[in-house]
Amino acid sequence: MRHTTIEALSHSYPVHIGGDLRYETGRYFPKSYSSILIITDETVAAHYLPDVKKSLSQETVFSHVIPEGEKAKSIETFYQLHTKAIEYGLDRQSLIIALGGGVVGDVAGFVAATFMRGIDFIQMPTTILAHDSSVGGKVAINHEHGKNLIGSFYAPAAVIYDVQTLHTLPVDEIRSGYAELLKEALLADSDLYQSLITIDLSSLSSQDLSDKLLKGIKIKAGIVEVDERESGIRKHLNLGHTLGHALESLLGYGYRTHGELVALGLLFAFRVSEKTFSLELPYEQLYTWLKRNGYPLNMPYVEPERIISKMKKDKKTLRTTIQMVLLKGVSKPALMEITDDNLLEYLDGFQKELAQRNS
Amino acid sequence: MRHTTIEALSHSYPVHIGGDLRYETGRYFPKSYSSILIITDETVAAHYLPDVKKSLSQETVFSHVIPEGEKAKSIETFYQLHTKAIEYGLDRQSLIIALGGGVVGDVAGFVAATFMRGIDFIQMPTTILAHDSSVGGKVAINHEHGKNLIGSFYAPAAVIYDVQTLHTLPVDEIRSGYAELLKEALLADSDLYQSLITIDLSSLSSQDLSDKLLKGIKIKAGIVEVDERESGIRKHLNLGHTLGHALESLLGYGYRTHGELVALGLLFAFRVSEKTFSLELPYEQLYTWLKRNGYPLNMPYVEPERIISKMKKDKKTLRTTIQMVLLKGVSKPALMEITDDNLLEYLDGFQKELAQRNS
Repeated sequence: MRHTTIEALSHSYPVHIGGDLRYETGRYFPKSYSSILIITDETVAAHYLPDVKKSLSQETVFSHVIPEGEKAKSIETFYQLHTKAIEYGLDRQSLIIALGGGVVGDVAGFVAATFMRGIDFIQMPTTILAHDSSVGGKVAINHEHGKNLIGSFYAPAAVIYDVQTLHTLPVDEIRSGYAELLKEALLADSDLYQSLITIDLSSLSSQDLSDKLLKGIKIKAGIVEVDERESGIRKHLNLGHTLGHALESLLGYGYRTHGELVALGLLFAFRVSEKTFSLELPYEQLYTWLKRNGYPLNMPYVEPERIISKMKKDKKTLRTTIQMVLLKGVSKPALMEITDDNLLEYLDGFQKELAQRNS
Repeated sequence: MRHTTIEALSHSYPVHIGGDLRYETGRYFPKSYSSILIITDETVAAHYLPDVKKSLSQETVFSHVIPEGEKAKSIETFYQLHTKAIEYGLDRQSLIIALGGGVVGDVAGFVAATFMRGIDFIQMPTTILAHDSSVGGKVAINHEHGKNLIGSFYAPAAVIYDVQTLHTLPVDEIRSGYAELLKEALLADSDLYQSLITIDLSSLSSQDLSDKLLKGIKIKAGIVEVDERESGIRKHLNLGHTLGHALESLLGYGYRTHGELVALGLLFAFRVSEKTFSLELPYEQLYTWLKRNGYPLNMPYVEPERIISKMKKDKKTLRTTIQMVLLKGVSKPALMEITDDNLLEYLDGFQKELAQRNS
């Protein structure tokens, strides 16, 4: 078992990472709680809810299972979870455990942030992707007009990350989480990036994964500690997400996994960086690795105007000009404003290039 | 114009108080904003929205009018306000102005706290009661099972308090806000209390009111600065509210004003204090003043068991025993646990006493 400590604005909290942690969950609690509500989804409940429940000795442990996927990040699920919390008699000394991936963490975290104006919550990520969302204190639900538009900054009381639970992940979820690891490495650690991009996803060991997840967490934590409120360098974490988020919204949440679209976004950021800074990035290396590891690199052509309009609704952009995180090289991020005219051209060219290589 | 500064956990912010402030709103902004959404209710919009809009020179000022009263603190209004904010193109550099009473402040503040994970908001209170809610950073909406159960701690960027707007208040709203002033004085300032309880509400001058509101704000700010998260002495602010909130919920929001029920709660707290500490408090003086100033002191008999069950659902109580703020004397508050048996007896006796005096 390894651990690291994250310094959030409001408090610092531990991240425990290792195998078998779910069998002794209570051991990693920072304090005792009057009652506990475990929020999880159907798949995770089937695999791991009994283990976690059994690991908690106290009597007042409740659980509630929410639907699978992004649709659970709705205002309706949010309200229903508040209803459950009230009905189970949770009070200000209670704990919410988010057992699952990023969706569970986001919605359960936002319920914890707003139940009686905030109670403790503990993240128990069960996906690779959730290593990313469990650091940084972002919790949110979706609005019908855009992702994560309703939310807070609310750091967990602890993160308990049992990497054994990652072995039951479907392959597209492994790809999804791994894309965020690639992103973190691209921002800050070229050795890690080279090591990530030479491994075959199918031969990834538990040990390897623990090491790399811990490195990813530390990169993200390092950025977030400097800039919790996203006024400056935290925006770098949006590398690959300007296009990724827009596509997620335009093609429908659940059409592809988040990280698979971020992977497309990384390729796009490479291309825009090359044009903006007149340099060459290892685009071919990334493209080839993604292809070999089964990332879907085709997509239906979407009118560039529609993509830009969606980007402008995204919370990361200012009202007028799109900001994108670009790379001046591996581990050299830079935030740039891209004019609509340039962006129209890049989006058109990028999509046509993809289509050609995939035809 | 007077002002004071409130130290919240996240930042400090100014409270400006005086007449005519609404004609130069922009002057009191702590910084400039990309766009502004004014949230207000129907009555306030009719009286003051044009003044405020005219006082803002920038082009991108939007407004949205929510329904009158507690029913606006619903999940539906909350979501609708997010929709408006998105449709008007608000971004992270935008401002929400809460122009109105406590309800507008609570719901607009909670929207600001959660829109894109938090943007600035400025309180412009137009009721006496809102002097209380505009300090302390509490923002919330109601759940069908209880008041203010969904919310955050989120301090405004500034409070701009135009006391001229208080002259258009209906008399029951004046009584409501004044009851919170009485409460603040009872907690910390016996001179203020004596002065408040010798004035006739009908002859209250603007100058008098400004002075007393500023004193009330400072008392509340003093408590909140020590204990923003309500773990300790902030609970004192619940004086009169244990019964007040339960009645509000049991008799229906809007049956009486908040403060009129808090006034009943203050009388009840006096009686319970007398029994718990075996002392005498100026109950008759308070009763007589409330009566003379038109506070409704009758109420339908409510089964004590129902009241206790409602109190236990209230966010201020621990799971098992009711905590009440009592007085060991004027300006000497103390937090006490009251057993269910004692509480049943006190609630029954208090209601019968009221009924007898009002028959």
